[in-house]
Amino acid sequence: MSILRALAVSLLVSVPSAVSLTAAAGEVAKSEPLVIEAQGSFAVGGSVIATPGTYANDQPTAAGQTLHGDHLYAFYQVPTQPKALPIVMLHGAFQSGRSWETTPDGREGFQTLFLRRHFPVYVVDQPRRGRAGNSTVEMKIEPVPYDQLFFDQFRLGIWPKYFDDVQFDRRPEALNQFFRSVTPNTGPYDAQVIASSMSDLFSRIGQGILFTHSQGGGPGWLTAIRNPNVKAVVAFEPGSGFVFPEGEAPATMPSAAGPLPAETVPLADFQRLTRIPIVIYYGDNIPTEPTTRRGEDNWRVRLAMARLFVKAINAHGGDARLVHLPEIGIRGNTHFMFSDLNNVQIADQVAGFLAEKKLD
Amino acid sequence: MSILRALAVSLLVSVPSAVSLTAAAGEVAKSEPLVIEAQGSFAVGGSVIATPGTYANDQPTAAGQTLHGDHLYAFYQVPTQPKALPIVMLHGAFQSGRSWETTPDGREGFQTLFLRRHFPVYVVDQPRRGRAGNSTVEMKIEPVPYDQLFFDQFRLGIWPKYFDDVQFDRRPEALNQFFRSVTPNTGPYDAQVIASSMSDLFSRIGQGILFTHSQGGGPGWLTAIRNPNVKAVVAFEPGSGFVFPEGEAPATMPSAAGPLPAETVPLADFQRLTRIPIVIYYGDNIPTEPTTRRGEDNWRVRLAMARLFVKAINAHGGDARLVHLPEIGIRGNTHFMFSDLNNVQIADQVAGFLAEKKLD
Repeated sequence: MSILRALAVSLLVSVPSAVSLTAAAGEVAKSEPLVIEAQGSFAVGGSVIATPGTYANDQPTAAGQTLHGDHLYAFYQVPTQPKALPIVMLHGAFQSGRSWETTPDGREGFQTLFLRRHFPVYVVDQPRRGRAGNSTVEMKIEPVPYDQLFFDQFRLGIWPKYFDDVQFDRRPEALNQFFRSVTPNTGPYDAQVIASSMSDLFSRIGQGILFTHSQGGGPGWLTAIRNPNVKAVVAFEPGSGFVFPEGEAPATMPSAAGPLPAETVPLADFQRLTRIPIVIYYGDNIPTEPTTRRGEDNWRVRLAMARLFVKAINAHGGDARLVHLPEIGIRGNTHFMFSDLNNVQIADQVAGFLAEKKLD
Repeated sequence: MSILRALAVSLLVSVPSAVSLTAAAGEVAKSEPLVIEAQGSFAVGGSVIATPGTYANDQPTAAGQTLHGDHLYAFYQVPTQPKALPIVMLHGAFQSGRSWETTPDGREGFQTLFLRRHFPVYVVDQPRRGRAGNSTVEMKIEPVPYDQLFFDQFRLGIWPKYFDDVQFDRRPEALNQFFRSVTPNTGPYDAQVIASSMSDLFSRIGQGILFTHSQGGGPGWLTAIRNPNVKAVVAFEPGSGFVFPEGEAPATMPSAAGPLPAETVPLADFQRLTRIPIVIYYGDNIPTEPTTRRGEDNWRVRLAMARLFVKAINAHGGDARLVHLPEIGIRGNTHFMFSDLNNVQIADQVAGFLAEKKLD
C-alpha cells in the first residue's frame, strides 16, 4: 500500500497546475498511456410523455409538447485490442457513474483499471440520476444532511472515528471528495424503470458483463432476468432487491436500519439467474451480531440475505459465489471497495473471476 | 459533409454490438486512436451546510449532520504531448457535460476533437446539474414538456419542420438523442454559485481556456472576472448575463421570448475582460427583424446584445470578436454548433483562433 499511497499524495498535492497533474498522473499510471479506439456517450431506453393540444410556435405552453425521460446515460470507451465482452458499470444509491471513475484520493477507478485490462467499459447514470436527470414523474429535492450517516453506512468507520484498518485515505480532501460524489434522485426510484433501460442498453451493445454496486444490485438481477445478453454479474455489496422464486422467499430480516424483505419473481424468471456466473463481494467491518448502530447493522442483514440468495441460485443448478473479503484475508474494505485504497487488489480478484469463467 | 454523414450512418447502424461499434468508431476516428496519459474526475468548490445538534449513530436524524453541495463536477483527460493550456468546457441550460461528448448522430464531440488536437480537456457539470446534483437549496422538479419549444429555440427549425439547410441529422434517432441530452436543475440556477466553483476549478488546474455554451456564457464572464487563470474565453451562443460597466449598460431589449436586460459590474471588474482574447460564435437562422415566434426571436436580441458587449470590451481596450457564422459562409448551424454535422469545421475555426492568439 505504501507506494500507492505515496503516489496518491503526489497526485493530490500536484493537482493545482495542469502540467504537474500530467506528470503526477503519468507516475500513477506507471505502465502505459491508455490507448482508446473510441469514446462517447448516448442515452438509451426511457419513455415519452405528451400533453394534449396543439403546439404554438409563437405562444408555447405545455399544450402539444412532449418530454423525453426515464432513459439512462452511458459513457463508453473502447480500448485497442478490446476483449470480446464489454463491462457495464451501474452505480448505487446517491451515486452516479462517477463512482467508477476516480477514487476519493485521486487514483484511477475501475473504469480506467478495466480499460487497462482491455475491456470496453460503459459507465452508466441510471434513469432519474445524474446526467440522465429527466424524469417523467415529479420529485422534490431537499438538501437533507446525510454526511455522518453515510460515513457510518458506507463503513468508513463509526462517526467521527475511522475504522483502524479502513482502506480509505484519511486526509480531509479525500472525505470531501467522497461526500461530493453524492448526487440525488431527480425522480422517484423505480427498479423496473432502471432494469428496463439497462436491458435496452444490453440490446444495443450486445453481450456483456454487468457490474453493480449497492442499490444497483436489485435492478441488476432484474436486468439479467430480462436480457440474455448479460453474460455474468459482478455485484459489489448489493443492498436490496434480492429475488427468490415465488414460494421460496426467506423471512424478512429485522435490523437497526429497518426490515429487509426478500423479493420474489416467477420461478422461470429466477432460473435465468442460474444460467450465468454470478459473484458477490462484501467488504470488512460488517458486524456478525445485531447492533443498535444503524449504519453497521444495515450490512449484517444484507450479507446474510445475500448468502441465502447465492444458496437459492445454486440449489436451482446455478453458479453463484459470495466472497466475503475478510474471509480470504483482504481487510478494511468499505462499501466502496472498487475505489478503496486497495482497489487494484480488488480489480485483480474480479479479473481472476472473469478469467476463471472464460469471460475475458 | 457526405463522408461524415456516411460514417455517422455506419456508427449508428452498427452500435448494437460492441465488436461492430469498435470497428465503426475506428472508421470515424480515421486518424489515430486517442492516447491518454491520465483521466478521471473530481468535485471542486461548493459549500457545506450543517444542522445543529449531535449526531447519534444509533438513531440518526438530521441533527448534527452536514451536507456537501453546490460544487461542480469535472471529468478530465490529458492526452500525450499535451499543450500547455487545458480547455474547460461549461455547458448551457438544461444540459450537462454530455453536450461536449458526442453529437446527436453519434460522432465525436468537442471533448474528443480537442483531445485529438492535444489539449487537456475538462468537461464540467455545473453546480446543481447532472453529476453535481447536491444542492444546498431545495427545488421541485416537474416533468414539464419542452421538446417542441427546444426544437424551435435551439434552431433545429420551426416545429415540426427542420430548416432546409440545418446542420442536424434528420433521422429520428438523432432527435431522440438530442431530446434525451436534456437534464434538469437540481437546485435554483445561480450564476454566482457557478462562477464561484468555476473559479475554484481554475485555481486548482492553473491557467486555461474557457469554452462556454448558451446559459454558461454569463457565469463564464464572471469566472474570467474572478480568476486571472482564465486566459481566453470561447463563447458559443451566449444567452444571458452579458455584463457592462456600471453606467454603460444598453437598454433592455424586448423580444417575443421576453425582455433581455444587460447586466452591470464595476468598471474594474469589466476591465478584466479586456485583458484576454474573447471570441463569440453565433450560428444560422437567426432572424434580423422581430418575429412572433419565441424560439427564433430569442436569438435576435441575444445576437444584438452580444454585438454591443463586444463593442464595449473593445472600446475599453480589449480584444473581443464576434463571429456570426453565416457572414463567413458557414451555413445552417443550430444553437449547438459544436455538435452539428459540421462540428469539425467549427473546431477548425476555434483552433484557428487559439493559434492566432498563441494559446496553443
